[in-house]
Amino acid sequence: MSDTFPENSVGLVTPEVVHFDDPLELACGRTLHNYQLMVETYGELNSEKSNAILICHALSGNHHAAGYHSVDDKKPGWWENHIGPGKPFDTNQFFIVCPNNLGGCHGSTGPSSINPDTGKPWGVDFPPLRARDWVQSQAKLADRLGIQQWAAVAGGSLGGMQAMRWALEYPDRIRHAIVIASAMKLSAQNIAFNEIARNAIKSDPDFRDGHFLESNTLPRNGLALARMIGHVTYLSDELMGNKFGRELRSGSFQQGQDTPIEFQVESYLRHQGDAFSSNFDANTYLLMTKALDYFDLAREYGNDPVKAFGHALCDFLVVSFSTDWRFAPERSQETVKALIDANKNVSYAAIDSNLGHDAFLLPNERYEHILTAYMSRVASTADHSEQRAASMEGSL
Amino acid sequence: MSDTFPENSVGLVTPEVVHFDDPLELACGRTLHNYQLMVETYGELNSEKSNAILICHALSGNHHAAGYHSVDDKKPGWWENHIGPGKPFDTNQFFIVCPNNLGGCHGSTGPSSINPDTGKPWGVDFPPLRARDWVQSQAKLADRLGIQQWAAVAGGSLGGMQAMRWALEYPDRIRHAIVIASAMKLSAQNIAFNEIARNAIKSDPDFRDGHFLESNTLPRNGLALARMIGHVTYLSDELMGNKFGRELRSGSFQQGQDTPIEFQVESYLRHQGDAFSSNFDANTYLLMTKALDYFDLAREYGNDPVKAFGHALCDFLVVSFSTDWRFAPERSQETVKALIDANKNVSYAAIDSNLGHDAFLLPNERYEHILTAYMSRVASTADHSEQRAASMEGSL
Repeated sequence: MSDTFPENSVGLVTPEVVHFDDPLELACGRTLHNYQLMVETYGELNSEKSNAILICHALSGNHHAAGYHSVDDKKPGWWENHIGPGKPFDTNQFFIVCPNNLGGCHGSTGPSSINPDTGKPWGVDFPPLRARDWVQSQAKLADRLGIQQWAAVAGGSLGGMQAMRWALEYPDRIRHAIVIASAMKLSAQNIAFNEIARNAIKSDPDFRDGHFLESNTLPRNGLALARMIGHVTYLSDELMGNKFGRELRSGSFQQGQDTPIEFQVESYLRHQGDAFSSNFDANTYLLMTKALDYFDLAREYGNDPVKAFGHALCDFLVVSFSTDWRFAPERSQETVKALIDANKNVSYAAIDSNLGHDAFLLPNERYEHILTAYMSRVASTADHSEQRAASMEGSL
Repeated sequence: MSDTFPENSVGLVTPEVVHFDDPLELACGRTLHNYQLMVETYGELNSEKSNAILICHALSGNHHAAGYHSVDDKKPGWWENHIGPGKPFDTNQFFIVCPNNLGGCHGSTGPSSINPDTGKPWGVDFPPLRARDWVQSQAKLADRLGIQQWAAVAGGSLGGMQAMRWALEYPDRIRHAIVIASAMKLSAQNIAFNEIARNAIKSDPDFRDGHFLESNTLPRNGLALARMIGHVTYLSDELMGNKFGRELRSGSFQQGQDTPIEFQVESYLRHQGDAFSSNFDANTYLLMTKALDYFDLAREYGNDPVKAFGHALCDFLVVSFSTDWRFAPERSQETVKALIDANKNVSYAAIDSNLGHDAFLLPNERYEHILTAYMSRVASTADHSEQRAASMEGSL
């Protein structure tokens, strides 16, 4: 294995299916009577079960956060930069757990699963989910793994929203929340981009009102468009300029009306859209973007984020990236301000990066340095979890 | 009329069709053997024919820049704020000319016109156009109107690109170029957004490979999506936040999976998209966005904008808006820098506005003040056009 994969990779990993037969009451009022989560874990759970880290994925992510599924695997998991021996989420120290979210399309129960009541794929009839539903299902997963308290819950974007929700829903089950490139709620502009993406999917005749699997069709065009919209907005103008400029694919202008792909950026986007539409479920995309839009941390706390965070007991690390314009540094700063006003321990890092929102997935020395430093602190509290648990009991 | 329309409006206006039977050689190498332009004019051409202003429209604009087409008309022309008696483009002083661009869909020859060779609508076979083709056709229009030299050529966005192109193509036929919320070329991000919009149109099965008119269909969904993408990017995040926030249409969250319109911003966008798709031609949209993408002021001047502007003889006003992120102030500043380095007279106004790119169409006191001040200067040079023409001849 050491010949095949980089030394600081977790190497070959195999996801596991975890079944749940106890009903899950969802925020929408409906109940999932049974469900499964596809899960990857890296590292070893210590005997005190105090070194577990939950990684929450974002819109297009899944359970495969690190390592390789086979020796031929061309790409490692999506957070390979951060997860592995000697990396910020150090698998020599931590037991890392990453499930595919419920409603996902990579093995967890979701719109492409069979609805037991009909014997057909759920499709668009799958219950709408909220971040709190994910958090609840992740808590059940923690129970199953015997983890009473996460050393940390970490995620970027929609993953950061789940980390924040964890801090409010299960305050005594999380010691650190790591909230990267996220926000307490989306802006109208963000909702607008999501709405356009959903429209693109629903306008595709192959969407068949959300029952495309039964019709043996796939709304590839719509999903590709949705991904292209997302992709452009997750990159910065600067990055796109550096990466593509106005480079022409052919080297010179073509003058026909129907010369669809001339600029390199067009070619790149089409490739991204097409690749995505081949391995992602359109109903999952709708579900995930709706969960993003719905997320509003403080809504049931009188729209007062200070009051909301008042319920948290954990410490927080908040990270933002300078050219991220969908989850702008200002949004992270609002989160930090609310946490400070709620008297929480919060560390904040504003990272210079020209990579836009996608920066949370990509290599950046300062980002890694900050995560490593923070995780050392998490490790030290993991070591002292028993004392801390005792002191927490005292303070409750 | 004074009872019906505001006093400072040009009031009732009637567009005119101007036919051209002399062939127009296009940048793509093809020739339009005859064509027509739909044109509106406001004010009176003076006897010296020195007070004519050409207004160039942007992507979704047309010849109807000011006034009303009927007493029942609910909305005036798109630059009603700026054109009229006592307004910056003062119809008491200037003769204002605004044609629908060739390739447009509001009366000028374009993709929805009949191709004389086939007897069917051109559709996607209409020749691709560049800003220089518009400028050339506008020069023919000036010839027809007996206008040797425009006192000013003005436009926002794609209109500003035409004003700049005028300065290079016909340096002795333009005294002032007014370039608002524009750029010497698009960024990769801008091209990407246009490409996604074009993809949305082309992915609509009702597009029928661009021959939807012959099939009696309209790619409404695709065009609506394209417009929605454009619209979001023409507004600022701040404006959308102020206008819609996260307001819910129903006042509370609906929990069904298929509750497509919940946030006010979604409802607004759909309305914008649907309204646009009812009165705009999809092939024109493709053509206009391609012209935007192709525009590259300095390309044939060795990519040196200073060298390009070296050919200009006119003075320039450049205007940008602080929250315009598609044609950012930095792009205008690049234009200004190139003009200064080329020893041109240039005035620059960076206007604070929370209205995004659309600010160039909307009321703003400082914007109007600056345009008014600049146009007084244009008026004074219009008065002295003969002396100026003489001095120019001396210097050539």
